[in-house]
Amino acid sequence: MNDCIFCKIIKKEIPSEIIFENNDFLAFLDINPIRKGHVLIIPKEHHENFLVTPDNFLSDMLPLAKKIGNALKKAVKCDFVVLSVHGLDVPHLHLHIIPRYFDDGLKGWSSIKYEPDEISKYRELILNSMG
Amino acid sequence: MNDCIFCKIIKKEIPSEIIFENNDFLAFLDINPIRKGHVLIIPKEHHENFLVTPDNFLSDMLPLAKKIGNALKKAVKCDFVVLSVHGLDVPHLHLHIIPRYFDDGLKGWSSIKYEPDEISKYRELILNSMG
Repeated sequence: MNDCIFCKIIKKEIPSEIIFENNDFLAFLDINPIRKGHVLIIPKEHHENFLVTPDNFLSDMLPLAKKIGNALKKAVKCDFVVLSVHGLDVPHLHLHIIPRYFDDGLKGWSSIKYEPDEISKYRELILNSMG
Repeated sequence: MNDCIFCKIIKKEIPSEIIFENNDFLAFLDINPIRKGHVLIIPKEHHENFLVTPDNFLSDMLPLAKKIGNALKKAVKCDFVVLSVHGLDVPHLHLHIIPRYFDDGLKGWSSIKYEPDEISKYRELILNSMG
């Protein structure tokens, strides 16, 4: 994709601090890190998000994230490592690997409540949409 | 693990709203959802987090998340779907699949800045820790 910033990084038209590269993936440091050492893994094929990415790419992403995550934990001496895949910002699938510390102050989202019996209706809705 | 709430859910000692089950995984609705329809995928083997989970489990998680995520998107008519793996709360690997809406008000974490040249030092640190 000509206009995709991640495709430009893959083609080395935009420089990046590369952590890992093979035929299918590039991993590099996010220049706007949540915490220092924050890595992005992207497939070299342009797919908008994980819902439309071929399974062969998806299968290899978490084992690669584990390899990088363990190196990151050792390198930055963080307390734990989190992964996330968002659906917005750059429309080229990317997996965030973020070092976390017990005292880093980052808060998770607050949960909401189901009405009584509502949860089983959601289950039914989802099951009816499974292929 | 006797004390693990997710192991109890797998053994059906604690009921859950199951979305998918096979030999290796259970997917069920989070009873404290970020948004309604929030699904958790867990491997049936107890592993504390993704950094220590065998690759064969990790390989199958994102393709399964894609299958469930597409059903979820159709079922709840959300705008996009996000994935996350945290390292805290229940120490049994779990992948969150969360429906999101453009107007849902959920905010991402703020990013921080590297000092000049600091990012390449982080790259070096991480590369030195790669196996």
